[in-house]
Amino acid sequence: MVSNTKIIFAQVPTGYPEPGVHMKVEKSEIDLNADIPQGSVLLKVLCLSVDPYMRGRMREAHKKSYSPAFPLGQPMNGHAMSQVVKSNNEKFKVGDLIYGMTPFVEYALIPEQFTSYLEIRNEAKDSDIPLTNFIGVLGMPGMTAYVGLIKFGKPKKGETLYVSAASGAVGQLVGQIGKILGLYVVGSAGSDEKVAYLKELGFDAAFNYKTKDIREALKETCPNGIDIYFENVGGKMLEAVIDHANTFARIVCCGMISQYNRENPEPIHNLIQVVAKSLEIVGFIVSNSPEMEGQFRKDVTEWIKSGQIKYRETIAEGIEKTPEALVDVLKGNNFGKQVVKVADL
Amino acid sequence: MVSNTKIIFAQVPTGYPEPGVHMKVEKSEIDLNADIPQGSVLLKVLCLSVDPYMRGRMREAHKKSYSPAFPLGQPMNGHAMSQVVKSNNEKFKVGDLIYGMTPFVEYALIPEQFTSYLEIRNEAKDSDIPLTNFIGVLGMPGMTAYVGLIKFGKPKKGETLYVSAASGAVGQLVGQIGKILGLYVVGSAGSDEKVAYLKELGFDAAFNYKTKDIREALKETCPNGIDIYFENVGGKMLEAVIDHANTFARIVCCGMISQYNRENPEPIHNLIQVVAKSLEIVGFIVSNSPEMEGQFRKDVTEWIKSGQIKYRETIAEGIEKTPEALVDVLKGNNFGKQVVKVADL
Repeated sequence: MVSNTKIIFAQVPTGYPEPGVHMKVEKSEIDLNADIPQGSVLLKVLCLSVDPYMRGRMREAHKKSYSPAFPLGQPMNGHAMSQVVKSNNEKFKVGDLIYGMTPFVEYALIPEQFTSYLEIRNEAKDSDIPLTNFIGVLGMPGMTAYVGLIKFGKPKKGETLYVSAASGAVGQLVGQIGKILGLYVVGSAGSDEKVAYLKELGFDAAFNYKTKDIREALKETCPNGIDIYFENVGGKMLEAVIDHANTFARIVCCGMISQYNRENPEPIHNLIQVVAKSLEIVGFIVSNSPEMEGQFRKDVTEWIKSGQIKYRETIAEGIEKTPEALVDVLKGNNFGKQVVKVADL
Repeated sequence: MVSNTKIIFAQVPTGYPEPGVHMKVEKSEIDLNADIPQGSVLLKVLCLSVDPYMRGRMREAHKKSYSPAFPLGQPMNGHAMSQVVKSNNEKFKVGDLIYGMTPFVEYALIPEQFTSYLEIRNEAKDSDIPLTNFIGVLGMPGMTAYVGLIKFGKPKKGETLYVSAASGAVGQLVGQIGKILGLYVVGSAGSDEKVAYLKELGFDAAFNYKTKDIREALKETCPNGIDIYFENVGGKMLEAVIDHANTFARIVCCGMISQYNRENPEPIHNLIQVVAKSLEIVGFIVSNSPEMEGQFRKDVTEWIKSGQIKYRETIAEGIEKTPEALVDVLKGNNFGKQVVKVADL
């Protein structure tokens, strides 16, 4: 028997979720010698991704949204890299590296009907690219940045791109792709250290939204107005951007993290400018753009290998750190892409 | 000398404009025998269009917006049908019928540099179609309906289209085009008489937003949710629609008339659904889609002639009625497209 710690969704939060209350670490064990059902695979989770959208899954099951609610009393789940340790399915071999939606446990038994969500990514074994990158810059968050900016932002060379939460899992890549595409790129983040990092990445300008007046800072850093806003934040930030947006600006809504843990959402007062400025405000879910996956992986892999793109991660060590890691993401306490390392390859 | 009454923009309003205060009727005369400058034309205004967007032009000149502010102390202007009574420009002959932006006066002298905005529409002479239709269903409001629904609404057969201000200059055409395109069409308006008219036009359902709870009414009349919202109203109506919108819904913002005369705009609290439902909220100005004009005129002319489309107008008689007519439009007191008849052809 070996340890098989699980991260359980224990209670629906109203504000910020709390480790030990809404998410619980449950110790258990598994017999790795036991047979597994026909068609199933047993995965050893290597690293897992915690992301802001998970807050939306911590809700009552009857409330509908784009991603399913976490079942109460069950392990949470999300994107992970794992390795096959046992297979009763001819599509998977022991040792295969797997990318996909996986329960947040040390060992995950995946029944046959769910194996279609697993993708073999053995190229990660012989790559110079760190394994955690496959759930970050090369995983769902990276593709979110790529799809959001290119498909929905419709960037034209020379335009001004503004990114909020710009040092985060998605934002840091959005800004760097913006530079590659010839945009003037401005970002905001919640500490001077993060702002310094954005400048290091090649952002043309950046500011700390906690210490500066947002409207003043936007005027200063985006002297030609905003053509594309990559929206991760919502609330007052969105209102300020609408006021500073150019005619025909695209506001690409990836998330609105400032609103996730509020009981009452912050209102927006200046939507009438959507008409006056012919604005386009568009929300998207990355999983609805599978046609872009091939090009995304090809481009981003090249950009990483050529050094054109850097990607900062914060790695929490051990699956039991998952609840705190998620709260850090929601509060902006982390820096860059937050991942949890569960086991060595 | 003949009468040449003018409608003057006299003062910037804060709430609803008032006739005699913010818009004044100024009596004057003109000598039709006097020579006119080289390159200019003298137009006799036959009918003119008053539209909600004009409220936005009643502002201080230093405030920028998509259409220029009316100059204080000068005649207001807008879309009109006129006839050339004198021409010192080889492109225009006496008797030509003209569509274009024209000062709100009985006789308008158009200097050469502004004649490029005038379009000869002599087909209106021999047509069965009433002259007022050329500033309504076949003019700017009609094209607004056509462009907004087809280009920005991206309708697919069987989808649900909801139109607010549905009996107005734009709304009544939006709904009827929706029916021609195979949509399930629902409208709202501000009186039972208007609602009855919508049903007469073939709307699948309609409700009076003044006497019904908007959210309840939307649930009842749009049982499959809303795929396209043609937005003329803003405020609480927009909020209710966002709550009832389907995934991938398009919210086409043509205007937000409920907000034009408020000092403080009504806030929107549920924009976070833009992400969750992958909504698209897009504003447009019809003049930015000139490529659609030919097809618009062809289609709508055919639909009028074949009886597929009806178009209700309220005609105020006499240019001096222009201020009241505009206030009626802003308050929803009119029914259908509001025009002012200035003179007979």
